[in-house]
Amino acid sequence: MKNIKIIIEYDGTNYSGWQRQLNQDTIQGEIEKAIFKLTGENVNLIGSGRTDAGVHALGQTANFITDVNIPPDKIKFGLNAFLPHDIRISDSEEVSLDFHSRYNVKRKIYKYLIYNRAVKNPFWGRYSYYFPQRLNYELMEREIKYFLGAHDFTSFSSPKSNSKDKNRIIYNALLLKDGDLVMAIFDGNGFLYNMVRIMIGTLVDIGRGKIAEGQIPFIMKSLDRQRAGHTAPPQGLFLEKVFYE
Amino acid sequence: MKNIKIIIEYDGTNYSGWQRQLNQDTIQGEIEKAIFKLTGENVNLIGSGRTDAGVHALGQTANFITDVNIPPDKIKFGLNAFLPHDIRISDSEEVSLDFHSRYNVKRKIYKYLIYNRAVKNPFWGRYSYYFPQRLNYELMEREIKYFLGAHDFTSFSSPKSNSKDKNRIIYNALLLKDGDLVMAIFDGNGFLYNMVRIMIGTLVDIGRGKIAEGQIPFIMKSLDRQRAGHTAPPQGLFLEKVFYE
Repeated sequence: MKNIKIIIEYDGTNYSGWQRQLNQDTIQGEIEKAIFKLTGENVNLIGSGRTDAGVHALGQTANFITDVNIPPDKIKFGLNAFLPHDIRISDSEEVSLDFHSRYNVKRKIYKYLIYNRAVKNPFWGRYSYYFPQRLNYELMEREIKYFLGAHDFTSFSSPKSNSKDKNRIIYNALLLKDGDLVMAIFDGNGFLYNMVRIMIGTLVDIGRGKIAEGQIPFIMKSLDRQRAGHTAPPQGLFLEKVFYE
Repeated sequence: MKNIKIIIEYDGTNYSGWQRQLNQDTIQGEIEKAIFKLTGENVNLIGSGRTDAGVHALGQTANFITDVNIPPDKIKFGLNAFLPHDIRISDSEEVSLDFHSRYNVKRKIYKYLIYNRAVKNPFWGRYSYYFPQRLNYELMEREIKYFLGAHDFTSFSSPKSNSKDKNRIIYNALLLKDGDLVMAIFDGNGFLYNMVRIMIGTLVDIGRGKIAEGQIPFIMKSLDRQRAGHTAPPQGLFLEKVFYE
């Protein structure tokens, strides 16, 4: 019996998110099917967390228990042979039997891309939030810093979130610009349901003047989702990396 | 009568190249159709040069003569309303009547992307040459410099090229690396048919040890296409920018 940890890259465009669902194409479902084709085993693949429909990943992490006799570092090639091209296993290794992809998460990094130009870009449509009006980038760059530190993120998460404790720590939050592409990076100990997309929607609302500057701390204290900005669309979001102890 | 210059971005994946062809989807054909829908005029759109099926552009340039009474800088929005999403006009302006997108080219920049990793990447398949064997990047970085300067590029162009003069000047040729992505940039006064793709194929053949180092000058002098490397696939190639006097 071996515990195999895999790192997964996926273009989420054509999937109904991470979690297995009946009659829907999902990332977890596709990988479990590939594991069955490779090993003949029906495993339960444990992911570091769910991602929504349309969200992408560059370093999603998961693990599963198997009895198969393939060298752990070759499992990635075996699975890739059975997976659709928009899902790739970039790494596979054996880990101790008590490793759990969700419980043992220490930190996660998410990236979010906004394409800010009047004309839509033919390459970035599936991979960014197309925003045609000019955003005040310098203001957003300053305002993103309000998210840093330990806070109750109730205002910045979906009411559908079923996490009881809404406290999270953001270690790093920064905004970068490369031509018309704006990239936000969040590094934190955990993220609530829709949290990155609501933080981004709020920053965009500040950048276009719909929410006044300096409001984020007050929105945060209100513990009221209604006071934060809109939920930015899924296609700009990338799960970049998951860190473990 | 006005001469309108447009800058075009396109994802070439779904097109049979730039040039208008009967019963084929082409970039020129799609833009001419959009111009007809916007202006009611059947124009001849002049491009800076052809691109092959599957080749992309970030700054293709073209011009057309029109009598339409739309402010030149608004024409881009009008055309984008009629174009498919993988073709976008990023700029439109009026230029003097003697401006010709092909005859007046002074310099062009092409970019080529190679994805060099054992595992294919789910995002870069349509936009790079997936090469699974490890390439000697440092060697390729040195060897690309042999292309610099004025040379007869017969060995590095398709025999189907109908340019009589095969002399071209490369002002800049460099290789950059960002993780598993290798990017080549060529800046020159003109490029023969398949020239970038054969230069890249030759560099890849050097990087994997199929062609010995230091051979490029001898291949160049031989004026023999057979001695150069393979023709790299179209999907890694991007026409980055076209410069005029």
